[in-house]
Amino acid sequence: MIDNLDQLIEQYRSELFDSVIPFWLEKSQDAEFGGYFTCLDREGNVFDTDKFIWLQGREVWMLAMLYNNVEKNPEWLAAAEQGARFLMEHGHDGEYNWYFSVTRDGKPIVEPYNIFSYTFATMAFGQLAKATGKKEYEEVALRTWERILERRNNPKAKWNKLHPGTRNLKNFALPMILCNLSLEIQHLLDENAFARTTDDFLHEVCDVFIRPELGGLVMENVLEDGTLCDCFEGRHMNPGHAIEAMWFIMDLGKKMNRPDLIEMAKETALKMLEYGWDKEFGGIFYFMDLKGCPPQQLEWDQKLWWVHIETMISMIKGYALTGDERCLEWFNRVQDYTWSHFKDQEFPEWYGYLNRRGEVLLPLKGGKWKGCFHVPRGLYQVWTTLKEIKAAQESK
Amino acid sequence: MIDNLDQLIEQYRSELFDSVIPFWLEKSQDAEFGGYFTCLDREGNVFDTDKFIWLQGREVWMLAMLYNNVEKNPEWLAAAEQGARFLMEHGHDGEYNWYFSVTRDGKPIVEPYNIFSYTFATMAFGQLAKATGKKEYEEVALRTWERILERRNNPKAKWNKLHPGTRNLKNFALPMILCNLSLEIQHLLDENAFARTTDDFLHEVCDVFIRPELGGLVMENVLEDGTLCDCFEGRHMNPGHAIEAMWFIMDLGKKMNRPDLIEMAKETALKMLEYGWDKEFGGIFYFMDLKGCPPQQLEWDQKLWWVHIETMISMIKGYALTGDERCLEWFNRVQDYTWSHFKDQEFPEWYGYLNRRGEVLLPLKGGKWKGCFHVPRGLYQVWTTLKEIKAAQESK
Repeated sequence: MIDNLDQLIEQYRSELFDSVIPFWLEKSQDAEFGGYFTCLDREGNVFDTDKFIWLQGREVWMLAMLYNNVEKNPEWLAAAEQGARFLMEHGHDGEYNWYFSVTRDGKPIVEPYNIFSYTFATMAFGQLAKATGKKEYEEVALRTWERILERRNNPKAKWNKLHPGTRNLKNFALPMILCNLSLEIQHLLDENAFARTTDDFLHEVCDVFIRPELGGLVMENVLEDGTLCDCFEGRHMNPGHAIEAMWFIMDLGKKMNRPDLIEMAKETALKMLEYGWDKEFGGIFYFMDLKGCPPQQLEWDQKLWWVHIETMISMIKGYALTGDERCLEWFNRVQDYTWSHFKDQEFPEWYGYLNRRGEVLLPLKGGKWKGCFHVPRGLYQVWTTLKEIKAAQESK
Repeated sequence: MIDNLDQLIEQYRSELFDSVIPFWLEKSQDAEFGGYFTCLDREGNVFDTDKFIWLQGREVWMLAMLYNNVEKNPEWLAAAEQGARFLMEHGHDGEYNWYFSVTRDGKPIVEPYNIFSYTFATMAFGQLAKATGKKEYEEVALRTWERILERRNNPKAKWNKLHPGTRNLKNFALPMILCNLSLEIQHLLDENAFARTTDDFLHEVCDVFIRPELGGLVMENVLEDGTLCDCFEGRHMNPGHAIEAMWFIMDLGKKMNRPDLIEMAKETALKMLEYGWDKEFGGIFYFMDLKGCPPQQLEWDQKLWWVHIETMISMIKGYALTGDERCLEWFNRVQDYTWSHFKDQEFPEWYGYLNRRGEVLLPLKGGKWKGCFHVPRGLYQVWTTLKEIKAAQESK
């Protein structure tokens, strides 16, 4: 039972629409060349003008999604469409191979080695097709979706540094994001294609990466035959990533009317959260090692904004969908940590990177990896879920 | 003037030969498959068996170098030669393209994308050729050296993710290491080749990456035409790397009888050390941004063993070669920090990774990037330089 539900709903609404979205609309749009700056300092000043394609796609998606789901606000749509134009003109090589980054004026800097530039382009153009009905956006989304499926078994393409055959690993990230992406572009796929691909991704996530022999922990990398590998990558744990995936699965479970999926996702999220919580300083570790060996990532003990925001989403959805009080307790605990550590009390938008003690490590509001995405998407998801909880309470 | 010179000389000698080298001889050698384990926990237990080629090369080099320069200890030579056999059999593709890593039994894992696997192979086989007179080692060193020169303009080869033409950067690391490498294999090169390549590398380091308009700071990346680039890579500063390079230049200056080079290197090292010193918590930052923007590397504020050890070397050499008292003051300060923070008081070998406050971040003694190299090389270099200082004092 949430006591202060109305006040909480207003807190998320206000933070999203009175502070975070205005920040991005005002500070990130490049009026001269189109697209968005994402390297913004604490006050929102641009400190680097390079454009990172997946962050461009994420901002288009965010604004178009709010336009579709909240309010037909022409400012949001215009801001999304100008970003989409920049992406169509400069974001890919003509064959829907999406660069990782381009210069401010759109010249390619880093080649299309990263499949997530493609997935966020697909999300962006899928939402924008829904918002506008324009066929050209639909075309971009579908052509890029085909490219993703083509590259699915070797997402890094020719930039893959692994010697084939010795230790072929498969990674959790792609099927995990595809679970979300197939829902995102369901309106563009035929029913069979949606069912088939979704089943496929769900199988990967649920039967391959979630490990019953480890009490339900989620691995980031396993060997091609599904067995565990005792190497750095094979021991690598990313609690926030696994917890984020679980709300994608809950959404799918809701859509497909599969309470078993929702239950499994909720239990897995709880398991990973208990596993990843820093009992000394609070917050959730960025990376861990399954066997407690030293991780290879030096940033392993840092506290990242997206980890905590995605965890709030999974916990509040888990509570809304199952009524499990442990989800509500964890939501409250993570919410307290998140609002008190990540929200900047003086300037809009939230910090992204804290050290283990929860002190600000980088005062930026956006950078190479942080843009108009996890903070507003999280505020939106928690806000709508809280409203659903309220509606359910009132209908009782 | 160093007061406690004899005691200090003994401290370095003892740490090197009574503790660090025995640790690696005992803990790192793989009696079954050959080569070395480098992933060793605090007590020296193996926590991962993958073999990282550049660390294999570095351990061969270290042991062969001590054999050549300190004592004809057959245990050192045997340990170096067994590592060299593993490298010759499993470290490269048959054409002296050196993998980044292989499994314990020598199957390639990561392709030869990293030129530093080549440079350390060259160093290793160069020293071993000197130690044994065996032509087969000389052959490996020279063939690999050719490969390095071939790849010099595109060290990442086909794994380079940068789109050609937009922003062609050149990086400090390769010419910097080649300054050291040409000295290392001087005995294998003809006089002209040595002079020509050394001149070339020195020009790159001194005239391209050291920037008078920035008061002598050293950049890690500049554009191909030598101008600065206001992007993440172009603003990237690595004080420890620049300071390490300066003792390579001092060594070259000594060999070439060029006091001007020595003076420039000493001043540059002092400049970078003052720039990189953490005035709040002590120690030297890992990475910085020229304009004070948030660095992209989340580990930027950590304190790394090699940074501090290489700085001790540059400062003590700067003092020995020029008598500049500032070098001695800084040597004392960095020495205090290093011995009190990095040396493990309970088990042999030193910690590698501390957080900004100087607390141990990873308790490992070796890993994917730390092996039998910076600690013993640093102890050796400081020990021999202190002995030179003593000899010079006594001859006065």
